This record gives sequence, structure tokens and C-alpha cells, in this order.
Amino acid sequence: MPQLSISKRTRSTPYTDRVTKAGVKAYTVYNHMLLATVYRSLEEDYRHLKEAVQVWDVSCERQVELTGPDAGRLAQLMTPRDLSRQRIGQCLYAPTCDRDGHLLNDPVTIKRDEDRYWISIADSDVIYFAKGLAAGLGLNVSIQEPDVFPLSVQGPKATDLMVSVFGESVRGIKFFGTQEVEFGGRSHLVARSGYSVQGGFEIYLSGADLGWALWDTLMEAGKSLDVHAGCPNLIERIEGGLLSYGNDITWEHTLSETGLARFCQTVAPECVAYDALMTQTAPTRQLRYLQIDGPAMEPIATPIPLLDGQTYVGQISSVAWSPDYQTNVAIGVVDASHWSATDTLTASDQPVHILPGPIVMSQKTEKSIIA
Amino acid sequence: MPQLSISKRTRSTPYTDRVTKAGVKAYTVYNHMLLATVYRSLEEDYRHLKEAVQVWDVSCERQVELTGPDAGRLAQLMTPRDLSRQRIGQCLYAPTCDRDGHLLNDPVTIKRDEDRYWISIADSDVIYFAKGLAAGLGLNVSIQEPDVFPLSVQGPKATDLMVSVFGESVRGIKFFGTQEVEFGGRSHLVARSGYSVQGGFEIYLSGADLGWALWDTLMEAGKSLDVHAGCPNLIERIEGGLLSYGNDITWEHTLSETGLARFCQTVAPECVAYDALMTQTAPTRQLRYLQIDGPAMEPIATPIPLLDGQTYVGQISSVAWSPDYQTNVAIGVVDASHWSATDTLTASDQPVHILPGPIVMSQKTEKSIIA
Repeated sequence: MPQLSISKRTRSTPYTDRVTKAGVKAYTVYNHMLLATVYRSLEEDYRHLKEAVQVWDVSCERQVELTGPDAGRLAQLMTPRDLSRQRIGQCLYAPTCDRDGHLLNDPVTIKRDEDRYWISIADSDVIYFAKGLAAGLGLNVSIQEPDVFPLSVQGPKATDLMVSVFGESVRGIKFFGTQEVEFGGRSHLVARSGYSVQGGFEIYLSGADLGWALWDTLMEAGKSLDVHAGCPNLIERIEGGLLSYGNDITWEHTLSETGLARFCQTVAPECVAYDALMTQTAPTRQLRYLQIDGPAMEPIATPIPLLDGQTYVGQISSVAWSPDYQTNVAIGVVDASHWSATDTLTASDQPVHILPGPIVMSQKTEKSIIA
Repeated sequence: MPQLSISKRTRSTPYTDRVTKAGVKAYTVYNHMLLATVYRSLEEDYRHLKEAVQVWDVSCERQVELTGPDAGRLAQLMTPRDLSRQRIGQCLYAPTCDRDGHLLNDPVTIKRDEDRYWISIADSDVIYFAKGLAAGLGLNVSIQEPDVFPLSVQGPKATDLMVSVFGESVRGIKFFGTQEVEFGGRSHLVARSGYSVQGGFEIYLSGADLGWALWDTLMEAGKSLDVHAGCPNLIERIEGGLLSYGNDITWEHTLSETGLARFCQTVAPECVAYDALMTQTAPTRQLRYLQIDGPAMEPIATPIPLLDGQTYVGQISSVAWSPDYQTNVAIGVVDASHWSATDTLTASDQPVHILPGPIVMSQKTEKSIIA
């Protein structure tokens, strides 16, 4: 693995000092910001995430804050998901689409107030799309990236840790619900959410100055729960079917190709993608969850072609060896002609099987992983 | 230095195989794409760049292609620089501004045809700003990221190398001018430009399939010129005063704070930033070129405060030890109150001196480094 040159441009976070001291081994860059990818090893981190509780620096989940009379209108322009009944404090998984119906991001939109929204983004500059729309339409809205740095607490013991720090009330937060908590003399939003299927919370820390204190408090309180520093885990997120913008879904895909159209069953007529989405025909390719036979595969840097004999019928964008399922789990886009393929698909000369959903769904009942 | 996890999201380029074989030691991520930062060492790369010729994979200089009847209008909406007299084939350094007059990028805009522009971008998703404006205003324009991967040839022997591969005609390309060249049976744009002050060219390779062939051809042809793989060099670019978007200049800065207003002396009335730029008062802080005494400083990951005694009067965003000038060279933003400061500024407990311009300008006559 090559080294990463860190500069001001690949922004450090209020937790980077603690991430370093916790022994981070590798980073990626996400929204122009550092995001840890490995602490002990991909597999040790995975095992621990499924058994205990981890604290993740996900400051790179930047917020696009819309404030002002046209904040709600702008939020709705950017997503086909109907936001009209979103309650204050509610999180909604609300894909961002351009006017061609292509996917620009798959953020969580949080309604903070009637005229204030946070769009909690994946890896692309959604703020530029918002600025372009607001300028083009002359909207009365302020668009900022606020001084907010999410810290995620994930794992089966996440609730225990959060209760020990913030009190019993956080136990009552429903999935994709939020609550304000007090820390360091200020109020911070806490949501029951996060980029794992183990359950957990995201603390939207307001103000960089409290970063070390928040991290240290969670680590101290979690000692008896075997808390460790962690990060989004490639294996666990593929098992759980969590998509990665830039990997599995990109601006080259239409909403229906990504399968995210199911979150937008009533397309909001106000969104810029409306006309495109209303006239698009059925997708000729779409994202699928896959299983690849053979020996353990390494994480990939470039897509692997999905073949039927010598014919290209799709590509695999994410893959990892799953210790729990003892197979390679993967995500990829498959041509419609091969959605029902059995026994004919291969990748890297190994048989590939299309699963009906994420592999965790196939073997146990699991609550919907995204709202 | 920590490691970098490479995934599909941190896009590899048509040259990555060759970059790897050439012994790249470290990368950064730029426009969601790999960009080499070091081959032999920062100082060896620097020395060689100033004496010979290097081939740089700068595929991460992505193009935002605007095509259609409103392409010119959209290009002008995005920048305060007057594009009305831009000739076909001409490159212009044309800062992108939002409607508040803040800097979203500092790209080079290339007019390919009357209704076709390439915006050759620094590290931010300018394509999202374009998409937002086009959707908001209902513009008749197609906005794409084309399959174009710039390869840069930089150094005092760059012209010799280019002539040996593409023929004598490239010698006639003026600074920020362009020419079409033939390679691999296709036509590619070549500009006299690049992110160094040593002189050179950028080849806008059309089509990823020719990447290895172009790289190998240049390397083979350049053997007698001591050609090496290279990359933008931190030391050389600070000496030369080349700004880095995300480091020295960001969306937190207004155009005048970055000093780039000099490229937009007649602000185009059509641009979205017009009203803001017309009403903005003189900047209270602005970018300056600096010299820092004391021992050699290492590249920084976070800004260094610039102090007058105990008072914060700015911050340093880029710094490197310059072997040629035997001092630390730096770029930073300085409060207006201290633009004339002599002998009172410090950073990291060392005296800081404000230079009248990039250090290369102070010691020899140098042609303007950006058009």
C-alpha cells in the first residue's frame, strides 16, 4: 500500500490526534478530509465491531446547512424523495439527483427546523449543487458547511456506552430519530444512525474545540465494554448491503440503476430530476448484491468485469472476504439480461451468484438498514 | 506517513500502472482521483524537475465539459473573468465564484469551440455548481466529465521532448495556447501550461486506452534527456508562487482575499458573483508569499498560526524548505493590519518575512506564471 501525503487540503479533523494515537494504519480521503480505514486489521476491526462497541471519526460526513425562507424548497429541489411530511428532528435517506436523474450523492437529510436543514453527505461536493441552484433560481437561502464533526458510536454495545455518557434518554431515540444532548456546555444533535448494521449513534459535535474531550470521555466510559477506535469496515458494510457513493453508485448511474428509487416512490414534483425520472424507462442495468466463490479476495482498487463466458455483463465495485459467511461478498452493477442468471456468471475466473439482497438479509431477520 | 487505502472511489488513472512501476512513494487524492506526490524524494524530484524533464500523471485535472447553445453563457456565469474575447483554443485562468464572491475553484477554462468549453479544474466538484446553475436557469447545455486524462511534461527540456514525439509544430505553441496533435490514431489537445514554473506542456489525452502507449512513448523518447516520472512538487510550486486550491485558497476566501481579482479586472456582469464583487469592500486579509527563518521545516498537515507577539494575524497554509534559496518558503493569509509588518511576525517561533511576490520573482526576471 502506498503512503498518503497529508496536507491542509486533505483536512484533518478535531479527532485526528486521537485517531493517530489509537494506531490508525491507513486512511482514505473523503469530502476532502481524512477518514480512517484500518486500525488493527480489516478482519480484527470487523470482529470487534460485531461484538463490542467502536468510536469512529466520521467528521468527513460533512453537513451542507441550508438556512432561510427557501431552505425547504432548496432541499426538495435536490432530491426526488418527498420531504413534505418530514418532521423536525427526523433523518431521511434522500438521494440527490441532477436534472437528468443521475445520482449526485446519497446523503441523509435532517430537518433541524422549519427553515433549517442539514444534508449529511457522502463523498461529493453537494454544497456546489446547492449553490448553483440557489444562484440560478435566486433563492433566499444561506448555504454553509457548519463547524460540525460527526463522531459515530457503533456496535452491539453502542447503546450501553451512549447511555453511560449521555443518560437514559438516548435509549429512547428511534432509528433515524434524533435528540439534543448536552456536552461540554453546549448542545449537540445525536441520531440513531451510522454506516454499519450493528446499530449505533452519530453525535454531531458542534465545535472543533470539544473533539478531544468527547473522544476521551467515550473511551474512558467504554473501558468495561471493550471500546476501541474504529471506522467504517469494508467487510461489514458489504455484508450489510450499505452502498458507497463513488464505489458502488456514482453520477454515472441513474436513480433506478442504483436501486434507490425505492426511497422515492412518490417522486416530489418540485425536484429538478422530476421530468427525467418521469420519462425514464426501466433500467437496463442495476445494482445487485453478489457472492463470489473461490479463495479469499483482496479489496479492489479498480472494478472487476462481470462476465458470462466472454461477454461483459456488468462490473463489481466492492468486494471483501467475509469470515462469518465464509465467502466473498460483493456489490456490482449487472445488466438486466443477466438478473436471473444462475451458474453462468464469473469474475476473476470464479463463479458469481446473484443474491436476493445483502447477505445479512438472507440468513437472519434484520431491520431495514436505511430509513 | 500513514498508508492510503485505494478503492474505486479514489479513482486510478490510465497511467497508474506506469506510475506504480516508476516507483511512486506517496499519493494524495485530488478530484476523487490518485495524484502522485513523491517519487524519489521531495528534494530529488525538485532538483531533477529544474534540470531535466518529467512526465506527470495529472489525470486528476478533470475536465468539466460544457456543450450546447448555452455553453458560453454557463461558462461566463461561473467566473468573474471576462470570457467575451476568449479565442477558440485559448486557455484562460478563470476563477470560479459563487454568488457571494467566494472562490469555488481556480480552474483553467479552455474554449474548444463556439459552443464547447472545457473547465480544467482544481480539487472541487465544479461540475456540481455547473449542474445546479443549468438546472436552476433551465439552460440548454450538456455537462459532462469527458474521458480525458491530462499528462503533463514539465522541465527545461520539456520542449525538446515534446518536439521529438509530436514534431516541430509544438514549438510554436505560445504560453496558454493550444494545438491539436495526433497520437495513436486520434487527435489530442496540447497546451503550453502546467503546474510548475519550469515551462512545459499538458497533453489532454482523449481516451484511457492510449494511456500506457503515450507514457511509454514519452519515456522512450526522453531517455537521452534524462526523463523521469514526476509530479507537482511542493517546493518548486511554492517558490514559483503557484497556489493550491484547498490549501492556500478555499471557498472560505473571497476572490479579493486570494489576490486572484487581478485576473478579473473587468468583472463580467453576467457572472453570478457580480453583485457581490461590486459591493465588496477592500479585503481585511489577503494571501501573501512568505519567507520563514530558521531550520528546514517539514511540510505541514494543518495551518500554522502567524503571530505578532501573542496576537493571531494570519495563518500559513503551505511551507517547504527551499534548497536553492536556502530558506523556508511559504504561502499564507495575512491580516491587512500586518501587510507592512517588518521584523515582528513569527510562525513556529521563527521570524517570518513578507515577500513582494513569489521568491522566484524576487531574484530573477520570470515570465508571468499564469496567463
